[in-house]
Amino acid sequence: MQLNKHFSEISESYLFSTIGHKVAAYQAANPDADIIRLGIGDVTLPLAKSVIEALHRAVEEMGHKETFRGYIPSEQGYDFLREAIQGYYAGHGVAVGTDEIFISDGAKSDLGNFLDLFDVNNTVLVPNPVYPVYVDDNVMAGRKILYMPATAENAFLPMPDDAVHADIVYLCSPNNPTGATYTVAQLEKWVAWAKKNQAVILFDAAYECFVTEPGCARSIYEVPGAKECAVEVCSFSKIAGFTGTRCGYTVVPQALAQDGTQLNKLWMRRQTTKFNGVPYIVQRGAEAVFTTEGMREIQQNLDYYRNNAAVIAAALDEVGVWYCGGKNSPYIWLRCPAGMKSWDFFDWLLETAHVVGTPGEGFGSCGEGYFRLTAFGDAEKTKEAARRLKEAIKTL
Amino acid sequence: MQLNKHFSEISESYLFSTIGHKVAAYQAANPDADIIRLGIGDVTLPLAKSVIEALHRAVEEMGHKETFRGYIPSEQGYDFLREAIQGYYAGHGVAVGTDEIFISDGAKSDLGNFLDLFDVNNTVLVPNPVYPVYVDDNVMAGRKILYMPATAENAFLPMPDDAVHADIVYLCSPNNPTGATYTVAQLEKWVAWAKKNQAVILFDAAYECFVTEPGCARSIYEVPGAKECAVEVCSFSKIAGFTGTRCGYTVVPQALAQDGTQLNKLWMRRQTTKFNGVPYIVQRGAEAVFTTEGMREIQQNLDYYRNNAAVIAAALDEVGVWYCGGKNSPYIWLRCPAGMKSWDFFDWLLETAHVVGTPGEGFGSCGEGYFRLTAFGDAEKTKEAARRLKEAIKTL
Repeated sequence: MQLNKHFSEISESYLFSTIGHKVAAYQAANPDADIIRLGIGDVTLPLAKSVIEALHRAVEEMGHKETFRGYIPSEQGYDFLREAIQGYYAGHGVAVGTDEIFISDGAKSDLGNFLDLFDVNNTVLVPNPVYPVYVDDNVMAGRKILYMPATAENAFLPMPDDAVHADIVYLCSPNNPTGATYTVAQLEKWVAWAKKNQAVILFDAAYECFVTEPGCARSIYEVPGAKECAVEVCSFSKIAGFTGTRCGYTVVPQALAQDGTQLNKLWMRRQTTKFNGVPYIVQRGAEAVFTTEGMREIQQNLDYYRNNAAVIAAALDEVGVWYCGGKNSPYIWLRCPAGMKSWDFFDWLLETAHVVGTPGEGFGSCGEGYFRLTAFGDAEKTKEAARRLKEAIKTL
Repeated sequence: MQLNKHFSEISESYLFSTIGHKVAAYQAANPDADIIRLGIGDVTLPLAKSVIEALHRAVEEMGHKETFRGYIPSEQGYDFLREAIQGYYAGHGVAVGTDEIFISDGAKSDLGNFLDLFDVNNTVLVPNPVYPVYVDDNVMAGRKILYMPATAENAFLPMPDDAVHADIVYLCSPNNPTGATYTVAQLEKWVAWAKKNQAVILFDAAYECFVTEPGCARSIYEVPGAKECAVEVCSFSKIAGFTGTRCGYTVVPQALAQDGTQLNKLWMRRQTTKFNGVPYIVQRGAEAVFTTEGMREIQQNLDYYRNNAAVIAAALDEVGVWYCGGKNSPYIWLRCPAGMKSWDFFDWLLETAHVVGTPGEGFGSCGEGYFRLTAFGDAEKTKEAARRLKEAIKTL
């Protein structure tokens, strides 16, 4: 057999695995260190009451012959959940058909698997820095990748360049790691560029629930015509704390086609062949997120995390460290103090303050000199981490 | 963008989707018809009591901050489940390391996704007939496929041919759809052939729990040296009725390498990039399968299905229809009576007896003239279906 040679072109370990190993090694060497983890964007609040009740009910159904559910009738997901998501979109003024929504086990899976639909000979355009799987997924497949710098100069929101042609472009807004969020007006320019280039936009909206500022987009479909050029990938991980419960969804509009072939049909074919759907129990839990009571509980959780962001921001303000994010996003993106490099600051912060964050360089070369902190931690621990961060930086 | 042109080379609809649509159309046209479905291999018994209790406990944990679980610590799966699977293997005399076991959301996903590890330029060897995704997965990727006929002459168990070279070979035992099961002695020949050809065997053991005959293999690793050339894919769908709960596992031995690269490492890299693991709740449910009480409950369910197979077999015996399977397998593979073709028999049986099965031709050209019935139905309905089948065939 011949192995896929492109695996040798990606770094051997995934960013968050590397961090996990580094922290584990430090903890092993310093068993008494009270480490606070604000690195990986993992949530800490329990699932909402409505979700827990729905999960219990679904488990109970699976235990009785009359209500037991076998194979999911469609790999695309149960109607009840796709209808609930349709309603959620309608709530912010976006019309999406239930036949355009595909339930997945998470955004990460779909962001990778969706590439099965494309030839290897496509050029991919990726922001730098950004969530690292966009790059790894495409390096693994052997596609040519172009980067667009996201820097303080463009407010970490790269705009289309008419001189650049690409076939597949990733946009992540609110952005991971920078927290920068495109306005609808900015996305209009991306849609126009995509149409001109016959390109497809893979729009990662995993953090849309954090958007509060008017004018900022929660969905790329707020832009007229976006359905002809964009796929939107979303997740229950952040809105509802499903990082360990695993559910997401991908919107593939019927209007999105190339040379007369609808991508919706191709994706359906891919999923019916290589996927068997998301557990019935989990789909019932996800459905509960969109009930009136579920949404109320979820908003309380989001406010809890927003408050964490404010606590971290206040500490950085106090010691004069530049940062952005934390407004439409659960991430604070800060410039490493004293001109430190990302991984140096990572080590320094771990050793000095026992606080774990994510080195900006791990998200791409333009992230060098920056650092990401997450607001998904426990409130008390976040306060303590902010205090330690502040005190440590004061000593520099 | 350029689409993956190979999608146009596979049939537009997946076999079981086609059957689903045909049956739905017939039911719509004949709303009073009491259709019994023995087509798709879906289970009908509820989850075992031990599993339900474990699921409830895990849901409860997710509802409290102290016991809540976020991202799965390793995409490979929780230690507790990998250790339970290791114990299950040990129970039939096979030693597997926990670092060799990867928890998945089902065999179908892994059978497709594992191909990411291989170059397009590999020749794939596939039995004919067989579970259709092996072929579709590889057509989609543009690989060359060779078929090995599984016929009544070779007892539906094709053996290696020294004149044939291939790089990737799929074996499914107990076989879907024929129920034919390799002995350890037969698999020894496959292992020897694979080593000679530097080929990898993708061994689909999804039905291993039905094996009862001495000498028949439950795992390819019962063959000495198989760890150097075989990956084994397994599932909770059939052993524990997880078709709608979604969990499986894939064993990638440390000893399996090509040109010095371990496939275990590549698969870990693929999974950490494109997958986020199986829900904590589901992993706890799966763990309960392997407890003493869980295994006792599971065996009762398997016996229930085995009895269904015996009921169908007895009906076929009575009317002199040739069949195999149903012994180490939940599938009965019968020769269509009166020389009917597979899809003709499908239509005839649906119209005459309101019984749904799966046309053998749907599993490959060598399945033409054959038909698959599943033993996973409700016992009363299976009895009724067997009665109708018998009466209908008598009229021919």
